[in-house]
This record gives sequence, C-alpha cells and structure tokens, in this order.
Amino acid sequence: MPSTRYPRPSERDDFGRVMYFTDAVFAIAMTLLVVEIGVPDPIRGAADDPGALLEVLGDKVPLIAAFFVGCFVIGSYWAAHHRFMSWLAAVDPGFVGLTVVYLAFVALLPFPTSVLGEFGDNPISAVLFAVNMGVVSTMEAVLFVHARRRRLFREDWPEQVYRWELRASLSPVLVFALSVPVAFVRPWLAILVWFLAFPLGRLLDRRRPEDARRYLA
Amino acid sequence: MPSTRYPRPSERDDFGRVMYFTDAVFAIAMTLLVVEIGVPDPIRGAADDPGALLEVLGDKVPLIAAFFVGCFVIGSYWAAHHRFMSWLAAVDPGFVGLTVVYLAFVALLPFPTSVLGEFGDNPISAVLFAVNMGVVSTMEAVLFVHARRRRLFREDWPEQVYRWELRASLSPVLVFALSVPVAFVRPWLAILVWFLAFPLGRLLDRRRPEDARRYLA
Amino acid sequence: MPSTRYPRPSERDDFGRVMYFTDAVFAIAMTLLVVEIGVPDPIRGAADDPGALLEVLGDKVPLIAAFFVGCFVIGSYWAAHHRFMSWLAAVDPGFVGLTVVYLAFVALLPFPTSVLGEFGDNPISAVLFAVNMGVVSTMEAVLFVHARRRRLFREDWPEQVYRWELRASLSPVLVFALSVPVAFVRPWLAILVWFLAFPLGRLLDRRRPEDARRYLA
Amino acid sequence: MPSTRYPRPSERDDFGRVMYFTDAVFAIAMTLLVVEIGVPDPIRGAADDPGALLEVLGDKVPLIAAFFVGCFVIGSYWAAHHRFMSWLAAVDPGFVGLTVVYLAFVALLPFPTSVLGEFGDNPISAVLFAVNMGVVSTMEAVLFVHARRRRLFREDWPEQVYRWELRASLSPVLVFALSVPVAFVRPWLAILVWFLAFPLGRLLDRRRPEDARRYLA
Repeated sequence: MPSTRYPRPSERDDFGRVMYFTDAVFAIAMTLLVVEIGVPDPIRGAADDPGALLEVLGDKVPLIAAFFVGCFVIGSYWAAHHRFMSWLAAVDPGFVGLTVVYLAFVALLPFPTSVLGEFGDNPISAVLFAVNMGVVSTMEAVLFVHARRRRLFREDWPEQVYRWELRASLSPVLVFALSVPVAFVRPWLAILVWFLAFPLGRLLDRRRPEDARRYLA
Repeated sequence: MPSTRYPRPSERDDFGRVMYFTDAVFAIAMTLLVVEIGVPDPIRGAADDPGALLEVLGDKVPLIAAFFVGCFVIGSYWAAHHRFMSWLAAVDPGFVGLTVVYLAFVALLPFPTSVLGEFGDNPISAVLFAVNMGVVSTMEAVLFVHARRRRLFREDWPEQVYRWELRASLSPVLVFALSVPVAFVRPWLAILVWFLAFPLGRLLDRRRPEDARRYLA
Repeated sequence: MPSTRYPRPSERDDFGRVMYFTDAVFAIAMTLLVVEIGVPDPIRGAADDPGALLEVLGDKVPLIAAFFVGCFVIGSYWAAHHRFMSWLAAVDPGFVGLTVVYLAFVALLPFPTSVLGEFGDNPISAVLFAVNMGVVSTMEAVLFVHARRRRLFREDWPEQVYRWELRASLSPVLVFALSVPVAFVRPWLAILVWFLAFPLGRLLDRRRPEDARRYLA
Repeated sequence: MPSTRYPRPSERDDFGRVMYFTDAVFAIAMTLLVVEIGVPDPIRGAADDPGALLEVLGDKVPLIAAFFVGCFVIGSYWAAHHRFMSWLAAVDPGFVGLTVVYLAFVALLPFPTSVLGEFGDNPISAVLFAVNMGVVSTMEAVLFVHARRRRLFREDWPEQVYRWELRASLSPVLVFALSVPVAFVRPWLAILVWFLAFPLGRLLDRRRPEDARRYLA
C-alpha cells in the first residue's frame, strides 16, 4: 500500500512533544525507584513462617522510606514543571536543549535515593541528595530565565511579578544548602529540613504581591 | 536560528498532561514486573537439553504467575482511572498533588508482586499486596471526593448517584480487608478473594439506580 | 490559588489514552531488553587491553542478537497495532479490558527474549518465544473481532474484506506453530521461520481482493 | 454499560503516535542509564563514617561520568529528532518501519554507555560507543532520504537545501569514524572528539546557504 499516509493534524504540536518527553522521564525516574527496594533475601527456616518474612521485610523499611522520599520529591518537581509550562505560549530550540540538561539531573535522582536507602545514617547520603535536588531547582530557574528572555510566556509579566516568582523558584536551593550542615548533626534531620521547602513555598505564595495573582493563575 | 519557535496549539492541554504522566507510571509499573522474573539459572548438564531447561523454567512458574496477577491488578486500576477521568471537565493543582500520592502507591506495586512471587506460601505476602491495593483504592476514592468538592465533573451528578459511585469505588477496600484473615488460612485463597472484587463490581453496576446510567456513560 | 483550573480541551480524547498507554508499554518492553545484555564481566589481565575486552564482549554476542530479535518482534507488533488503530472510529470499555490482557503478553516478551539469549541452543527457548508471540497475535485477532462486533470501525467493511483481514492477522500464529517442530531440529532455524512471517504477510497483502484496498488505506 | 463509547477526536492523530512512541523509547533509554550506576558497595567499617562513604562513592565517578555522556548523547539525538519531525507534514508505513530500526539502535545505547563506564581506559569501549552512535546518525539520514522520496515534507525544499541538510545530518558519522583511531591513542580523547560534533554542527549551520533559512525554521 504505497499510498497510505498518516497526515499531521492541522495544528502542529511540537510544543506538546517537549512536555511528553519530560513527562516520560519523570514517570520512569519515579517508577524505577521501586527496583532499588529489591526482592527480600531468602528466609532462614520455613518459607511460610509469617514471623520470619516480617523480619526480612523489616530490613527493607529504610529502602521503602527512601522510595517514598524519592517519589515525593520527583512528583513535586513534576507538579512544579506542570505549573510552569502552563504559563508558556511557545518553546524554542534553546529551551529544548536546556530541558535535556534539566532532565539528565532528574534522571539521576534514583541514584542518590538508593544511596539514601542504603546508607541513611551517613551524612554524605543526605548531602548527595541535597546537591542533586539543588541542581534540579537551579535548572528550573534557568529555564524560567530563558523563557523570560526569549518572550515565551503567554502574558507579559510586570518586572516585580517575574522577580518574585524567580526568587520563589530558587528558595528550595536555600533550603537544600541549609540542610547540608544539619546532615552532619543528624542525617534524618536533613530530610525533615527538605520538607520545610513546601510550607515555605506556601508561605511565599501567601505573601505574593496582589497584582501577581492574575498572572500566576 | 534564534527565530525558530514551537508555538503551543491554540487549545491548551494542561489537562491531558496529568493523564499522560499517569499512563506512563502505570505502563512502567506493569512492564517492570517482567524484570522480577529474571533470567533462569544456568542448567546443570548439557545447555541444549530440553528437559533440563524445562525444569529450570518450572522454578519460574510462581514468578510468572505473580507477573500475571500484577499485570491484571495494575491494568484494572488503569482501566478504572481511564473511566474516572472520562467523567471530568477539568483538574486543579490539588488534584495534581493527590495524583502524585496515588501514583507513588501504584509505582510501589511491583514490590509486593515480587514478594508474592518469591514467598507465595507465606500469608504475609498476600497481606502486603492487599494493603498496597487497599491504599490505591482509597486514593482513588480521595480523588473522586476532591473532584466532587472542586466541581471538576463535566455534569452535576445528583447526590445519590455520587454516593452510589463513591461506595462502588470503595468496595474493593472491603474485599482486600476480608482477604487478610483468609491469607492466614491459605495464601492462594486470598488471591482468589481479590478476584471476587471484579464480579462484585459488576453486581454493583447492575444494582445501580436507574437515573445513574445517564451520568456514568 | 484555589481558582486555578486546567480545563479539558473541547474535544475529549479518551480514545487517545488507550493508544498512549499501549505505546508506553511497547516502548518500555522494547527498551528493557537492553538490561538483559548486562555489563561485561571483569577482564582477566590489564583493564586497558583491547583484545581482552573484545573477548569479553564476544561472550555478549548471543545476548545482543536476542536483543535485536526482541526489538524487531516488539517493533513489528507496535507497527501492526498502529495500523489497526488507524482503522477505528472509537473504543469501548470491553476493548480497554482486552487491551490490558494483550499488553500483559507484550510486557512478558522480554522474558522469553532473555531465555533465548542465554539458552539459544536449546529448542525450549525457541518454543517459549513462539508461544508468547502466538498469544500476542491471537489477542490481536480477538481485538479485531471485538471491534467488528461493537461496530468500532470507521467504515463498514464488506464481509469478505473483514474475513480476509482476520485471516491475515492470524497467519503469524500458523508460522509460530510451524516453528515449534523446527526448533527441535535446529533452534536457530526456528528464528528463521519467524522471519518468514513478514514476507508471508507481504504476499498476502498482494493477493488482497481488489475492493479491500480502499478500506485498508 | 454496553453503550459507553470513547470516540476518536474528529482529527486523526496517527502521525502523533509515531512521535509519542519515539519519545517514550528515548526517555526510557536515557533514564535506564541510572540503573547501571548501581548501589555503592557496603562500607568497610562504620556505616555512618562520611569519609568511608565518600571513598566508596569515588569508585562510582567513572559510572556517573558515563551516565552524563549517555544522557547528553541521547538527549541530543532526541532534540535532533524533534527538529526533523517539525519539518514533516505526514508519515507513511515505510517511515514507521524505518523508525523501529532507528529506535532499536537508540534502545541499545545504554549498553555501550555501561561498557564505557566500566572500561573507560580501554579503546574498545570508545569504539563500541562510536559505532552505535554512527549507526543512529546513519538511520537519521535514512529517515531523511525516505521522507524526501515519499514527499512527506511540509514544504518542497530546493535541491541544494535538501543536499545541504543531508550532509549536515551525516557529518557526525565522520566525527565518530575519526574518533576510532584517536581512541587507540587515549580513550578519553575520543570522547572529546565526539563533543566536537556539536560545535561542528553550529559551524555548518552558519555556513548554511541564505535561502535555506526560510525552510529550516
């Protein structure tokens, strides 16, 4: 059938592809985390002994906890990307290139997650995770600045709204930097500090200038 | 080429992204199950002996059975999500956040599936799987309630139709809870009980009030 | 921002979701095949000796060959699904349910692929792969029959066109069944027989009745 | 509910599916790279000793470097595919078939990446990676020629613009071939040579004939 052709819909969607690729990388990074939990070790004694399996599963608790920390972090970044893209009217080749760099660091996240699951009592695990998240948040800000420069936003934001939002998108970097010395006191305290990034974001949202609300809907 | 731009299609599809991300997580969770089956152990004796390979493959039967249980469960949840999303007219940031929590528990499903494949005779395996499915079903109901409160449905359902559907979406939780004591009698009986969730759903569908039919199409 | 809402585009695309989910499962099954190749074993002697690494990579040749067989088979099924879906005007919940069963067997394909890579000289490897492909082809035919019964096609095909296409979609099952006895003579001959399925398909395409052409574009 | 149907949107998008499938394979190949880094080995001595974990993580540096090389290469190919597809008005079954071959070699990329991470000092690692990239670039050119022959472009390019672009899309193959002898001098020099492919591309873009600009936007 040499005449079969699948035409492109009348409206081009090269914009959408950037989102689908991003969605796929986020979804895979999030779902791959489960592989690091692994199958429990064989049970000493009877295979059908509930107590013995519970004990073996108990050894997996730090890995399962790391799985949920990783899911929550990756999921939050995806939700932030969803919100950011909803503000744009277009992307350009430079934006596509920066997105690839940004996604490389998202794709790396399962590695510090598995280190955190394996060496949760070691401050270096928390530092590694904080550094990786810090780079992802910085790349988010880089995408934001690029979109502003190339006029990719749907609406022309006033300077103070733009500045306010840029500061808000960089605030997690501050929290992650703060968590580094905390990790050397108690590693799990560092994880607690990361979760402060979210109420902090909410607080910033409330202090947002009046005129920002209509642009950020 | 600084002037190349890929414009967003005239109609925004931030709604669609939530579905694509969800689809990707479901598809990966379902496909990752095959990794847990693993490559068969080396054969004792001649590598081309059919009987020896059949024997080694025979050891994989519980893992292959667990693969199909996992595929069926994840596939059914995906089909339920597909049906639910077809009722909605919009999503909001809160819905996106709850979806991330819901997907974390979907992404976890390969873990209890592999435990079930490895320790099928142990009641704890069945309990672990039932608890994970119970949380996913509960999160489905939470999304449903959220969509109602924020008026995200395409049509305004009467109160009794809404209540009826909420009960239907929570009925699997009852079945999973029931399967826990059954697992301590015979673990494979618990799996049988889960499969009752589907005829039960069909039965509920038939007893659905007359006026519900036009809303649930 | 309680007022932010992401509305659904005016045209519903619950149809598209079935394709995106299918695409994701196919893409993951195809890409996961690379994991089975694995990292080469450590080299005996100097790590920078080209001859030593070439030798170690040589041991990977059967796994790489299996990777390409798997990619080609999964890719061909995806292309066939792409063509089939281009004929449909709609899907229904029954179609969604059958698609989940179909995808479970697609998601399983990396398992027989890895067995083929590890035990290529064993007839059982070829039989296992042939059985899995046979089930996928059968499920394709089941989807085809379901689509006909529920009138999901875009055009109303005459009976003989429909019958002709159904036979064509089942012809690979015959080829796979034929390959089973061949595998016991020489396993690699069975793989050759599978590749006959494709010229056979082309041959059938040419013998297609005249009036079929306009429906199958 | 036998009457529930999910209709296809009025505009068919069989074109889009080819892109979504491609996006998914690229995204998975890129994200799977993280699996090859693996979990660090257990620490000798105290599990909470920062110095000991840093030392163990130090052993992972070549694997992490290989991860970024792989991400950058796969991401660049994806960006090139994105740009190429933006020029097309339609695809045909032949294009779909060639895309499957192209994607098989994209899906293989994590294998040479992991060999590069494990045997970075061995010239064969660099050669293997260069050969795989060379095949992907060649398949890109094959897709380009096919699209020209079947008149799948949105605009009718003049012969010299077409020739110019074909040469540009084949220029990386030259760079990869050049890197093979370099790898036998110093393997890491070969990696440096690959990164020359990108400034070379930019240089070619600037020397592009005047009339080409309006077609390549």
